[in-house]
Amino acid sequence: MAVYTEVSDEDLSTFVTQYDIGAVLSCKGIAEGVENSNYLLRTEGGAFILTLYEKRVDAQDLPFFLGLMQHLSARGLTCPQPVSSRNGQALGHLAGRPAAIVTFLDGLSVRKPDASHCHMVGATLGALHHAGTDYGLKRANALSLDGWLPLVNAVKDRADNVQSGLATVLTDELTALQFLWPKCLPGGIIHADLFPDNVLFLADRLSGLIDFYFACNDAFAYDIAICLNVWCFEPDSSFNLTKSMAFLDGYKTVRQLTDAERMALPVLARGAALRFLLTRIADWLDRPPGALVSERSAERSPCCGSRRRR
Amino acid sequence: MAVYTEVSDEDLSTFVTQYDIGAVLSCKGIAEGVENSNYLLRTEGGAFILTLYEKRVDAQDLPFFLGLMQHLSARGLTCPQPVSSRNGQALGHLAGRPAAIVTFLDGLSVRKPDASHCHMVGATLGALHHAGTDYGLKRANALSLDGWLPLVNAVKDRADNVQSGLATVLTDELTALQFLWPKCLPGGIIHADLFPDNVLFLADRLSGLIDFYFACNDAFAYDIAICLNVWCFEPDSSFNLTKSMAFLDGYKTVRQLTDAERMALPVLARGAALRFLLTRIADWLDRPPGALVSERSAERSPCCGSRRRR
Repeated sequence: MAVYTEVSDEDLSTFVTQYDIGAVLSCKGIAEGVENSNYLLRTEGGAFILTLYEKRVDAQDLPFFLGLMQHLSARGLTCPQPVSSRNGQALGHLAGRPAAIVTFLDGLSVRKPDASHCHMVGATLGALHHAGTDYGLKRANALSLDGWLPLVNAVKDRADNVQSGLATVLTDELTALQFLWPKCLPGGIIHADLFPDNVLFLADRLSGLIDFYFACNDAFAYDIAICLNVWCFEPDSSFNLTKSMAFLDGYKTVRQLTDAERMALPVLARGAALRFLLTRIADWLDRPPGALVSERSAERSPCCGSRRRR
Repeated sequence: MAVYTEVSDEDLSTFVTQYDIGAVLSCKGIAEGVENSNYLLRTEGGAFILTLYEKRVDAQDLPFFLGLMQHLSARGLTCPQPVSSRNGQALGHLAGRPAAIVTFLDGLSVRKPDASHCHMVGATLGALHHAGTDYGLKRANALSLDGWLPLVNAVKDRADNVQSGLATVLTDELTALQFLWPKCLPGGIIHADLFPDNVLFLADRLSGLIDFYFACNDAFAYDIAICLNVWCFEPDSSFNLTKSMAFLDGYKTVRQLTDAERMALPVLARGAALRFLLTRIADWLDRPPGALVSERSAERSPCCGSRRRR
């Protein structure tokens, strides 16, 4: 949800000449994505998203992300497809940053998902897990159990400034999860950030998934737990069983859960909640001056359900 | 440069059914405009800008602005054209705010205008002044001499927090301008905000003007003075005479300046500088929490050349 870097018209026009997409017609900074600067780029060749990767994204991970979108797209999942330059490179360089152009996907994010949306998201998550099984590159989940301890340490002294008692919640929860966290669950490529703003719908059908910049290798059921957390709770914090069943029914049209996975879901959901709480607190405490970010991500308390900031 | 209001997918789809532009394909909040929330809206009928008018814009002025764009467009000036709903209304209501859909203009803003750009801007400003002569509605310039006193009073106690000595500069300058300000210059419709981000170029030709939400009736030469200030100074604050001559040569292809106008330009330029300095200081001191605004507008000092915030 950000534009951190602005691009001059000359630099942009020069950059685009490396691609077979015609001349630039317009380029507007958009409020999308969390870690990077995103532009809606229109050229004679169509509509695209231009992404400039900011310093929080490890440039070494970019071939994994871009290759994954190409891989999933080739297997029928609708997601942005990186556009290669004439010399065959999907990754370029613009305004001092790594940059890529991907195809633009039509669709709108839903604000109030219903059970039917949840069913479609479940089925598409299953399709993503299936399509990723033969992807050649790997990327460890930097924001799983091992990554939470440094985050807790980074924020715990200031967490009570966000909400009284929060530091104790974080340390107690991390200690519990270190005992409870399941191992050896079935795994592979997961999206790891499938919030409603990363799922597009068009005419009541799921039209695509976007923002693969947290994708990694981890337990499939962890990805499911993230989705149950973010798609199946009501504004009053109550859990909507109907939506969760619809989500799982959708998922099972592609892949069955093992007993171990089903048993692990409550703990995985606690871990997912802690993971997003931690990065939101960290972002809240260390808001960069000057980022073009939305009200929700930058100004709401990290404890009150901001969807955008991870 | 802002998205202050977010729009739900349901509200948007319902809103768009009032227009003959087909169904919504996508809608992205963009970093454009100063006072309002802007979205790049793609429908089956094409690309549009959806604007939600925030409280700083007087709703009573909206018919003036929308009518002006229609008027100028009908006279050959390329600017966004308001799209009327099926019941003939250009002004609608969305997410609790007045809202309008206008056509999308291709083009890029230039970061480093050269003399050729300045010539085109001058000629187009002349064309705008000419095309506005038979526009039926009027709107006083709320940000001319009479509007500066309340702004000076609103910021002077805190202006030295922005830069030491600034309060004295503001009050002295206002006093001088109250003596020097010219009256009875030729006037009519002016844009009043023709900064580089409001002028689009495509393939080295000026492709359109945008953002008419400061347009009003005032002296033509004041509009020229604003442009000389914002198009003809170099990053080191030096005045580029070549660019200013190119601008005026362009303007004169449409309309000659009177002697009184030429004589008044230095004072008008001082007034234009004070006007933008005042609103920038006011915005700097009263930054609304949560606006989706750019680094330039929200975080840079108002004294160091932010282009976006007025």
